[in-house]
Amino acid sequence: MKQMSDTSTAKAQPTTQKFVYNFGSQTDGNATMRELLGGKGANLAEMASIGLPVPPGFTISTEVCTYFYDHDRTYPASLAEDVKQAIQSVAEQMGRGFGDAANPLLVSVRSGARDSMPGMMDTILNLGLNDETVEGLAKISGNPSFAWDCYRRFIQMYGDVVMGVEAANEESEDPFHVILEETKKAAGKAQDNELTEDELKELVVKYKALIARETGSEFPQDAYDQLWGAVGAVFGSWKNERAILYRQQYGIPAEWGTAVNVQAMVFGNAGNDSGTGVAFTRDPASGEKVFYGEYLTNAQGEDVVAGVRTPKAIAEMADELPENFADLEKVRARLEEHFKDMQDFEFTIEGGRLFILQTRNGKRTGLAAIRIAVEMNKEGLIDQKTALLMIPAESVDTLLVPVFDPEAQEAAKKICGGLPAGPGAATGRIAFTAAQAEIEARKGNKVILCRSETSPDDLKGMLHSQGILTTRGGVSSHAALVARQLGKVCVCGAGDITINYEKKTLVANGVTLKEGDYISINGTTGSVYEGLIESADSEVKRVLEGTLKAEESYTYQLFQTVMDWSDEFRTLRIRTNADTSAMAEQAVAFGAEGIGLCRTEHMFFEGSRIDDMRQMILAVDGVQRREALKKLLPMQRQDFVGLFRAMGDRPVTIRLLDPPLHEFLPHDDAVRRQLADKLGLPLEFVIDRIKALHEENPMLGCRGCRLGILYPEITEMQVQAVFEAVAEIKTNDGTEVNPEIMIPLVGFKAELADQLKVVRRVAEQVMKDKGVTIDYLVGTMVEVPRAAITADEIAEQAEFFSFGTNDLTQTTLGLSRDDMGLFYDEYQRKEIYSKNPFASLDKTGVGKLMQFAVANGKQTRPDLKLGICGEHAGDPSSIDFCHNLGLQYVSCSPPRVPIARLAAAQAALRAGN
Amino acid sequence: MKQMSDTSTAKAQPTTQKFVYNFGSQTDGNATMRELLGGKGANLAEMASIGLPVPPGFTISTEVCTYFYDHDRTYPASLAEDVKQAIQSVAEQMGRGFGDAANPLLVSVRSGARDSMPGMMDTILNLGLNDETVEGLAKISGNPSFAWDCYRRFIQMYGDVVMGVEAANEESEDPFHVILEETKKAAGKAQDNELTEDELKELVVKYKALIARETGSEFPQDAYDQLWGAVGAVFGSWKNERAILYRQQYGIPAEWGTAVNVQAMVFGNAGNDSGTGVAFTRDPASGEKVFYGEYLTNAQGEDVVAGVRTPKAIAEMADELPENFADLEKVRARLEEHFKDMQDFEFTIEGGRLFILQTRNGKRTGLAAIRIAVEMNKEGLIDQKTALLMIPAESVDTLLVPVFDPEAQEAAKKICGGLPAGPGAATGRIAFTAAQAEIEARKGNKVILCRSETSPDDLKGMLHSQGILTTRGGVSSHAALVARQLGKVCVCGAGDITINYEKKTLVANGVTLKEGDYISINGTTGSVYEGLIESADSEVKRVLEGTLKAEESYTYQLFQTVMDWSDEFRTLRIRTNADTSAMAEQAVAFGAEGIGLCRTEHMFFEGSRIDDMRQMILAVDGVQRREALKKLLPMQRQDFVGLFRAMGDRPVTIRLLDPPLHEFLPHDDAVRRQLADKLGLPLEFVIDRIKALHEENPMLGCRGCRLGILYPEITEMQVQAVFEAVAEIKTNDGTEVNPEIMIPLVGFKAELADQLKVVRRVAEQVMKDKGVTIDYLVGTMVEVPRAAITADEIAEQAEFFSFGTNDLTQTTLGLSRDDMGLFYDEYQRKEIYSKNPFASLDKTGVGKLMQFAVANGKQTRPDLKLGICGEHAGDPSSIDFCHNLGLQYVSCSPPRVPIARLAAAQAALRAGN
Repeated sequence: MKQMSDTSTAKAQPTTQKFVYNFGSQTDGNATMRELLGGKGANLAEMASIGLPVPPGFTISTEVCTYFYDHDRTYPASLAEDVKQAIQSVAEQMGRGFGDAANPLLVSVRSGARDSMPGMMDTILNLGLNDETVEGLAKISGNPSFAWDCYRRFIQMYGDVVMGVEAANEESEDPFHVILEETKKAAGKAQDNELTEDELKELVVKYKALIARETGSEFPQDAYDQLWGAVGAVFGSWKNERAILYRQQYGIPAEWGTAVNVQAMVFGNAGNDSGTGVAFTRDPASGEKVFYGEYLTNAQGEDVVAGVRTPKAIAEMADELPENFADLEKVRARLEEHFKDMQDFEFTIEGGRLFILQTRNGKRTGLAAIRIAVEMNKEGLIDQKTALLMIPAESVDTLLVPVFDPEAQEAAKKICGGLPAGPGAATGRIAFTAAQAEIEARKGNKVILCRSETSPDDLKGMLHSQGILTTRGGVSSHAALVARQLGKVCVCGAGDITINYEKKTLVANGVTLKEGDYISINGTTGSVYEGLIESADSEVKRVLEGTLKAEESYTYQLFQTVMDWSDEFRTLRIRTNADTSAMAEQAVAFGAEGIGLCRTEHMFFEGSRIDDMRQMILAVDGVQRREALKKLLPMQRQDFVGLFRAMGDRPVTIRLLDPPLHEFLPHDDAVRRQLADKLGLPLEFVIDRIKALHEENPMLGCRGCRLGILYPEITEMQVQAVFEAVAEIKTNDGTEVNPEIMIPLVGFKAELADQLKVVRRVAEQVMKDKGVTIDYLVGTMVEVPRAAITADEIAEQAEFFSFGTNDLTQTTLGLSRDDMGLFYDEYQRKEIYSKNPFASLDKTGVGKLMQFAVANGKQTRPDLKLGICGEHAGDPSSIDFCHNLGLQYVSCSPPRVPIARLAAAQAALRAGN
Repeated sequence: MKQMSDTSTAKAQPTTQKFVYNFGSQTDGNATMRELLGGKGANLAEMASIGLPVPPGFTISTEVCTYFYDHDRTYPASLAEDVKQAIQSVAEQMGRGFGDAANPLLVSVRSGARDSMPGMMDTILNLGLNDETVEGLAKISGNPSFAWDCYRRFIQMYGDVVMGVEAANEESEDPFHVILEETKKAAGKAQDNELTEDELKELVVKYKALIARETGSEFPQDAYDQLWGAVGAVFGSWKNERAILYRQQYGIPAEWGTAVNVQAMVFGNAGNDSGTGVAFTRDPASGEKVFYGEYLTNAQGEDVVAGVRTPKAIAEMADELPENFADLEKVRARLEEHFKDMQDFEFTIEGGRLFILQTRNGKRTGLAAIRIAVEMNKEGLIDQKTALLMIPAESVDTLLVPVFDPEAQEAAKKICGGLPAGPGAATGRIAFTAAQAEIEARKGNKVILCRSETSPDDLKGMLHSQGILTTRGGVSSHAALVARQLGKVCVCGAGDITINYEKKTLVANGVTLKEGDYISINGTTGSVYEGLIESADSEVKRVLEGTLKAEESYTYQLFQTVMDWSDEFRTLRIRTNADTSAMAEQAVAFGAEGIGLCRTEHMFFEGSRIDDMRQMILAVDGVQRREALKKLLPMQRQDFVGLFRAMGDRPVTIRLLDPPLHEFLPHDDAVRRQLADKLGLPLEFVIDRIKALHEENPMLGCRGCRLGILYPEITEMQVQAVFEAVAEIKTNDGTEVNPEIMIPLVGFKAELADQLKVVRRVAEQVMKDKGVTIDYLVGTMVEVPRAAITADEIAEQAEFFSFGTNDLTQTTLGLSRDDMGLFYDEYQRKEIYSKNPFASLDKTGVGKLMQFAVANGKQTRPDLKLGICGEHAGDPSSIDFCHNLGLQYVSCSPPRVPIARLAAAQAALRAGN
C-alpha cells in the first residue's frame, strides 16, 4: 500500500561555509545556480564566464537571507571577512580602493531572487562615496559635477532606502525631491543635469541635514558601514509589503529569500560619450523578432526606469553611437544563442566602453510568449518541447480574450496615442489613484488606472484595473513591465495627456475627462479613446466559429501550433464542466474530450421548471414528491438529449442532484406568496417548510448523496432521464453514449452502495423498456476527507473517482470559500497561505489526501478511472500535480480548456514522459 | 515514519469448508467460538462439553450468513449434505428419525448472534411435524392432544415467520390468533390447553387453509423442506427492521451476521410433570445474589415469554417440583462457576427430566453490573481485572444521576416521550425563555427550560435550569450537547409537544401547560410528566458532598471500589472540560486530574460582560477594540484565578477564543435596539455590523485562530489575563500553575506560528512585570483534517496536540452536527453509520487521521503531549481507541469523569498493559 509521503520541510540550513560568490576575473558561479545566487547573480556569473563585458562584483547567497530571518536579522560569523576579501578583489580588478579617498571604488548593491521580482526590492547605487572620496572621484574622472551628482544621488537613495527618510504621508512629496526642485528653481535650471558643481555641493549639504533631522543619525561616512547598511536593507526588503504582495500574486514561496549582488559601478552619466539603456532581444509586447529597447545618454540606469526623462528608441543609437550599437547587436545575438530565450538586459556605456550590467529572461505578454516560443522553434534555436515549456500556460488566455469591436472602435473618438505595452482592449471608469481603482472595482465597476507613471505602491490598484494608462515612461517602465506580467492591457508614455491629480481631470488634445468617466485603451495599438467601446470576440474564437479564415489570422496559427504540439505530448485527457449544450459545444470547439462534470441542478433553475422543482421540495410525502418529479422528468430528459448530442460519443459524467434543497426556495416574502398561490398551498405552510429546511452550515448539511438516500425518488427520476436520453440518441442518431453516473458527497461506502442499487435498478428497467443495451459506469466524487481516507472501501463500489477539490479543500481546511473574505486579506498580508487554496491546489494538505485516495483506491480496483472536476482542474500548477498523481483526466470550465491542454503537455514534459 | 495502517476490509470469506458444528454426544465447538457460532451456539457446545443436560443439535456458522447475503440469499454447495449428516446424528442420539412417521424427531431452529439480541430475530419450534408424523408423535407420547397442540403451534409459527402470513395492518389481529379464539369460543373453552384432540385437528385444518389462501402455497409436508424454509427465515431475519434498530442501539456491526441453531425439541408441555422456565443466577435489576426467575408447568418456552399465562416465581418450584429445583440450583452454581458471570438460562422439564436449552450472560441494569462484578470478586470467583472488564463503563452513570422517587413517578401523568439526552430526573416550573428561566431561578424556584430548540444565546438560561426540554433536534443537538456538558437533565426532540411562545403555552396530547406550571422530565427514559415529581441526589453525590456517610451507602462503596480498582490499572490520565470554578470543583470531586479544555468564550456570556464583549465586536478599529478589551481583562483574569484555585497544581489547558463573533450578538430587534442605546451607537450601524459578520457556514468561517490572527489584541488580552492570574495565584497562594495555552482551528503551521509569537511576547511581558517565572506550554487543537495531515509541520511549533474530535468529525465527514437531523433517521434505518459518529469516534475515518497525526507529530517532536477534548473523550469505546493510540489523557465533561476512569482502566486491561 502506498503511504502518505514524507513531507519533512525542515528549514534548509546552510550546508556549506561558502556564502560569497565572485564574478569577474575569477567567477565562482554559473546560470544553473539560481537557487543559491538568485537569477541576477547567476546570470552575471554566466555572462562573465562567456566573456561578456560585466563589471566585476560578487553575490551574497540566498542562504544568508534564510539565516538572516532565522537569526533575528543577524549574519553568519564568517560573512564579514568573506565580504571584505571579495570587495578587495573587485577593487584590485578595477585598480581602485574601497573607501580610498584618492581613487575610490564605487559599487551598486542590488537584490536578486530566484525568480525576478522587478522593482519590488531595494537597490543602492554609487555606494562608497563620502565627503572625501567624492573629491577623489572628481579628480580621477576630471568631472567634478559628475562626482557631486553621483554623491547627491547616493545620499538621496541611501537616505530613503536604508535610513528610512520618507514623505510625511501619501499626498506629500519625497522630501529629497522637494529640496532638489527648490534648488533647481533657485538656480533657474530646468533639468537635473544642468546643475553646477557648487549647486550640487549645496544639495549634498542640505540632503545630509535632512537625514540628520529626520532620523537623528548622521549619514555614514565609512564605506563598510555604508555597505552593511545597504546589504541589510536589501535583505530586509524581501519582506516589505509590495514584495509580499508580488509573491502572493506569482506564488513565490517566502522561504526562497533573495541574494544580494555587489558590483563595481560603471557610469552612464560620465559625459556625452556615456549612456545607459535597457534592451530586449525581441519585442516583449508582440513577440516580433526586432531589437527593442531604449536608452539615455549621460544618465544612470534609474533614469530610464523611473521615466523622469523620456528615453530614445534603441534604433536611434545606430546613428548616435554607431560603434556601441554594433557591439550591442553582437551582445543581443550572443545572449539569445547562449540563453536560448528572449533576454531583457541592461547596459551602460562609460566613456565609449560598453558594459552589460545584467541579463534575464525578459518578461513578456502572453501573445509574445507564444510567438517567441513558436518562432524560436522555427529558427532552430530550440526544440518543440523547450518551446512548449517556455510558454506560461495562462498565456493562451490572451489569444482568447475579447478585443474591441472593430466598428465600435472606428466610431469612437480617439483622443491620443501612446506606446502599446500590454496587448488587448480595455474599457472602464477613470481612476487616478490605486485606492480609487480598488474602490471602483469593489463596487463591481471596470476601471482604467490613469497615472503619470506608476510605482510599486500602485500594484494593488493595477490588480483591480482592466487596464493601465500612463503619460510618462517607455515600454520598460514599471507600468509596462507589471502590466505585461499581470496580463493587463496597458498603454504607456501617452505624452499628450496631462493629468491633474488635484482637480481629478485628464486632458488630451482639448478633451477633458473626469474621474469616473469612461475611457478605452487599445494596448495592441497604443490608441486611447474617449468613452466606452464594446468589445468583440478574439480572432481565435472567430476562426473557430468560422467567421474568419485561419490563413488570415497569424494569432490563430500561433494558437493552433501550440495546441497541436500540446496534444502531441500530453497524456492527461481534457474534459470540461458543462451543463448545457451551448457550453458543451464551445468546449468541444476548444478541444474538450468529454464532460467531467454536468451539474444536473443547473437544469432546474431554468424558466418555469423552478416551480415544479419547488413543488417537489415542498411535497409532504413520497407520493406528492413523485407527482412533481413526473413533471420534471421530460424536461431533464430533453436536456440530456441536447447535451449528449453536442458531445457525440465523448464520455459524459453526470452528477446527481447535489445542493441543499432550500437553495431552490425563494428568500423574499413576495415570491413566497406567489409560490404559495401558484401551488395552492397556505402561505404559512410554505414558510414553515422553508424554515424547517434551514441549515446552520448548508455546506455540511443535507446535500449530495444524502438527498438521494433520503428521497430515492429523486435519484430514480434523474437516472431514468439519463438512460432514456441515451436510448433516444442511440435509436435516433445511432450514436453510442456511455454515461458515467456520479454520486456526490460520498463519505461512507454504504452511502454509495445505497445509491448504486437505485441506479442499477432503474438503468436495468429503462434498458428493458427501451430494448437497448447501454454501457455505463457508476462512481463518486471524492470531496470529503473521509472518502479519501476510506478510498479502499469506497472503490469496492465505485468504478471511478472524480476529485471535487472545491469541497475537498473546504472540508480539509475547515474553510468556507464564501466566508473567508473577512480574514483573507490579513492572511495574505501575513503570508499564511502561500497561494489562495481555492485557486491553486493545497498540495501539502489536500494533495496528500488525493495521493492517499489514488493509491488506496487503485489497490482495491486497479482499473479505477480517476479525474478531477474542481476549479483547480483549470489551474496549471494543479494540473501538473494531477498529472504526477496519475489521474486520467482533468475537467475544467470551457474557456480554460486550451490552457489545460498546454498545461497538461508541460506537466508530461516536466515529468519526462 | 508510521504510516496509516492498512484497513483492508475485504469481506471475510469462509476460510474453511466446515459450516456445521455439532453439540451433544459429539461436540465440535466451545464457548470461545462466539464469532463463528454465535453466543447461543457457542454456549450450547460449552454446556454439552461440561456435562450439562443439553438436548443434542448443531449450529450453522455465521460464515454461512455472510455467504447468504453476499450471494443473493443462497448457500455454499456443501451445506445441504453437512446439514443432512448433522440431523441424522441428532436423530440417532434421540433414537428417532427426521420425518419418520412412526417415531419423528422434532427440532427447534433459532438464531444466535455473537452478541445476544433477545427477541429480535426469528425462531421456529416443533419443526418436523406433518400430517403423518403428528400421528407418530401422538402414539409415542401417548398423548394425542399434546401432539396436535404441537402441530398447530408449529403451523402457526411457520406460517407467520417463514411463509409471511401477517395481519392485514397494524390494527388488525394476527389471523391465526383470530381462528384460535373463534375455535375456543365455539367450543366454550377459556384456555388453549383445554382444547380437545378433535378441536385441535380442526384448528390444523383451518390454519393450513389460511396459509394456502394468504400465500398461494401449501404448508410444506416434507421435513427437509420445512427445515430449509426455517433456516432461510432465520438468516433473513438478521436484516429485519427491529434487528437493524437494535444493532444501531448497541453498536453491533451488520457484518457479524447470525448463526442458526438446530436442536432436538424437548417438551415442557408434555404433561404436569413437565414445564419450562427462564432463570437468572442473580437478580438482574439489583445485582443481589438471589436465584431469580420464573416458570410454568405443562408449557412451552414461548408461553413464558409471551405472557399468555402468568408464570410463577422460581422459588415456588422448590415446593412444586422439589427434585427438579434441586437440580436447577446445582445448574445455577455450575453455570456461574464455569462461565464466571451472571447467567440468564432457559430450561425445560420433560416428564420430570431437566434439560438446559440455552445460557448466556444475563442483561442487567448498571447498578446490577457493578454490584455483581464487585461481589463476584469478593467471592473469589473472579479477579479484579475480570470484574472491571465485566462492567459496562456507562453503568457508573446510573450511580450518579438524580432519580425520581419511583412511586411518585408511577403516580404522575405522562404526557409524552422524547429522546433521552441527559440522564437523570428533573422537575421544575416551565420557562419558555432563557431570561424567564433566570428570573425563576433567582426567585429560588426550580426551572425546566422548554424551547423548540436552543442556541448559544440560551446558555445562561440552561445554566439556571434543572433540566432542558426541546421539541426539535436529536441526541446530538445543541441542547443535548450542552446539557451533557453541564450535567443537566435533558429530553430533546419531544415532537408531540407544541410550544406557543406568544401565548406562553405548551400543548401535548391534549394537555395544556402554562409558563410557571410544573413539569417533570426523566432524561434516562425520555418521558415527560405533568406536574411535580420529587427527586433526590444520588447517594454517591451525597457522600462526596458530605451529607451522607460513606459507610451508610452500599452504592457509594460499590462506586468507590470500582474507582479505586480503575485508578490502579489505567494509564490514561483523566481531565475534564470545565469553564468555571464550580464545574472544576465537581470534576475534581469525581477524580479529574486536570482541565483539558477551558472554553474561554463561556466566560463572556455571564452577567453584563456580554455587553462589553459586544462592544468589542462592534469596534470599528483596533483602538476601539482595545478599549473594550481593557474592560474584559479584569473579569477574565478573575475567572482564571477562580479556576486555577479550584484545580490546585493540576494542569489546565486554556483554549483561546474560538466561536465566530456573531454568535455573541443579539438576534432579535428589541435586544439590538437596547444594545445600540447602551453603546450609544446608531441602530443601523449595529444592524449593518451584524449583517457584515453573517456567515454562510459559520462552522468553516472566521473563528478559531483566524480570529486571533485578524485581531491579535484579543489574543493579547486573553494571554495577559491567564498569566496575570497565574502570577496572582503563585504570589498569594504559593501554588505553581503551569498553564497550557491552546490555539484552536489551526490548519497551517504559519497560523500557529503567528499566534505563538503573540503568546510568547505577552507571557514574557507579564512575567517581567510581575517578577515571576512561569512554565507554560503552547499547543493546538487538531480539529481540521489538514492539521492531522500536516502534523509533522505543526509539531515544529506545537508543544501539545489536543484532538478536537467534534469539529474533526464534522470536517472529515463533511457533516454538520446541527444539520444532520433531516436525514439522520433514514441513515440509521439504512445502517449507513454503524454508530452516531458524534457519539462514538469514527475509527475508520477520523481515527485514521488521528493515528496519522500522532505518528507524524511524534516524529517531529518525540515528547509531544497528546490528548483529546472532544465529546468522544467521555465515550468508552472511543477512550479505548485513544488508549491504543498512545494519547496521554482524555478530557471529558465533569459528570463523565468516573465513566472515563473506568473505561481507561478497561482499555489498559484489554490492551494487556
